[in-house]
Amino acid sequence: MVYELYYWPTVQGRGEFVRLALEEGGARYRDVARESGKGAGIAAMMRLLNDLESPPFAPPILRAGRLLIGQTANILHFLGPRLKIAPRAEAGRLWTHQLQLTIADFLVEIHDTHHPVAGSLYYEDQKKEARRRAADFVKNRMPKFLRYFEKVLGQNVSGERYMLGAKLTYVDLSMFQVIAGLKYAFPYATRKAARKYPRLFALHTRIQERPRIAAYIASPRRIAFNNDGIFRHYPELDAARR
Amino acid sequence: MVYELYYWPTVQGRGEFVRLALEEGGARYRDVARESGKGAGIAAMMRLLNDLESPPFAPPILRAGRLLIGQTANILHFLGPRLKIAPRAEAGRLWTHQLQLTIADFLVEIHDTHHPVAGSLYYEDQKKEARRRAADFVKNRMPKFLRYFEKVLGQNVSGERYMLGAKLTYVDLSMFQVIAGLKYAFPYATRKAARKYPRLFALHTRIQERPRIAAYIASPRRIAFNNDGIFRHYPELDAARR
Repeated sequence: MVYELYYWPTVQGRGEFVRLALEEGGARYRDVARESGKGAGIAAMMRLLNDLESPPFAPPILRAGRLLIGQTANILHFLGPRLKIAPRAEAGRLWTHQLQLTIADFLVEIHDTHHPVAGSLYYEDQKKEARRRAADFVKNRMPKFLRYFEKVLGQNVSGERYMLGAKLTYVDLSMFQVIAGLKYAFPYATRKAARKYPRLFALHTRIQERPRIAAYIASPRRIAFNNDGIFRHYPELDAARR
Repeated sequence: MVYELYYWPTVQGRGEFVRLALEEGGARYRDVARESGKGAGIAAMMRLLNDLESPPFAPPILRAGRLLIGQTANILHFLGPRLKIAPRAEAGRLWTHQLQLTIADFLVEIHDTHHPVAGSLYYEDQKKEARRRAADFVKNRMPKFLRYFEKVLGQNVSGERYMLGAKLTYVDLSMFQVIAGLKYAFPYATRKAARKYPRLFALHTRIQERPRIAAYIASPRRIAFNNDGIFRHYPELDAARR
């Protein structure tokens, strides 16, 4: 099976959570919207939005044989057991998915720090609102989510190596990506957070050093963080500057 | 099996999507945070947030025997096949769940019309930002989501009676609740939308008339819409007044 991922070609965005799973899972996959030629590129991705059977609302989209799957957490829920990066039993799958959905909630709030009014407007047109929202994010929401995930990791009865259980799951990969993104977007606030939530930051380092993830990050397949994605670095939104 | 739902006792909120599924599915359940006495009430709900095995981030929370499940869409994904309100085959379950996750995305945007800066602040303290965000919501985001769901319903190869397939799923119940909520929160904008998305509004009426749903809505178990929930009616945020 060659999986086909469809996602915006110039940002990590939500597609990155799927890429990390495919990479660590050793899957064969195409990153179709980043390819050129017939049946590839953004045009191919946009065509899927008009699928007659199960049209997705937005990328990322995964094609797996005859299945077309949308929603990041849904894609990971599907891939997990197939790539052996999720438990197989129902209770474990539900808990893994639940954590991923909480990460998805966190991502919306991270994104909305720079776009609190409308995704269709430029950051510059909602800078004032962004300052207010980011202030609350750094002071209240980011600590609330990180404290929660730190607790989950600390309570794992199988030890603090993974978010849950004794083996790597896609939640660990997603958690790595969240910490990496926060370091990029909010370097000051995140440096302070690293002291408060040491388990999460240690997890980030461990994931980063896994051979497949390290090779992926060093490859041209990894798009660099930039100010078009979910995680954007606007110094005025980081704690130090306010 | 008696299911136990834990959710804030004075609002419909996200808990309502679970309640509708339990009601239509004919499940035996307790709405624990609304009960009083030992082991009930909000205190019982708050205790679950400290669960040692799978602590949820936030309500709603469902206890099903030994399982403790968080995240609304995850709860519905679990309940679906058990209450016979979801397909059993994997492809159908994924598509159902994908639609539910898109509804969840829509709900965040609906909520943030009145709280674009911070959930911890009063509406009155973010009224100006709310006006800007709600204007974009009514003009761009609400039509984008409704157009999408109308398309999905219209494309259902089994007919326009349900969002997918030939039998009721929890997505139909959730779609009913979204339309009901929009009618409450944005009466003017929603009246206009009813003409543009007739299939969704016909679905809303059909679901409302189902015997179990009609009985539930007429019962004291149904909390009325109010201005503490996701759907809030502030006339200044509705299209007519701007």
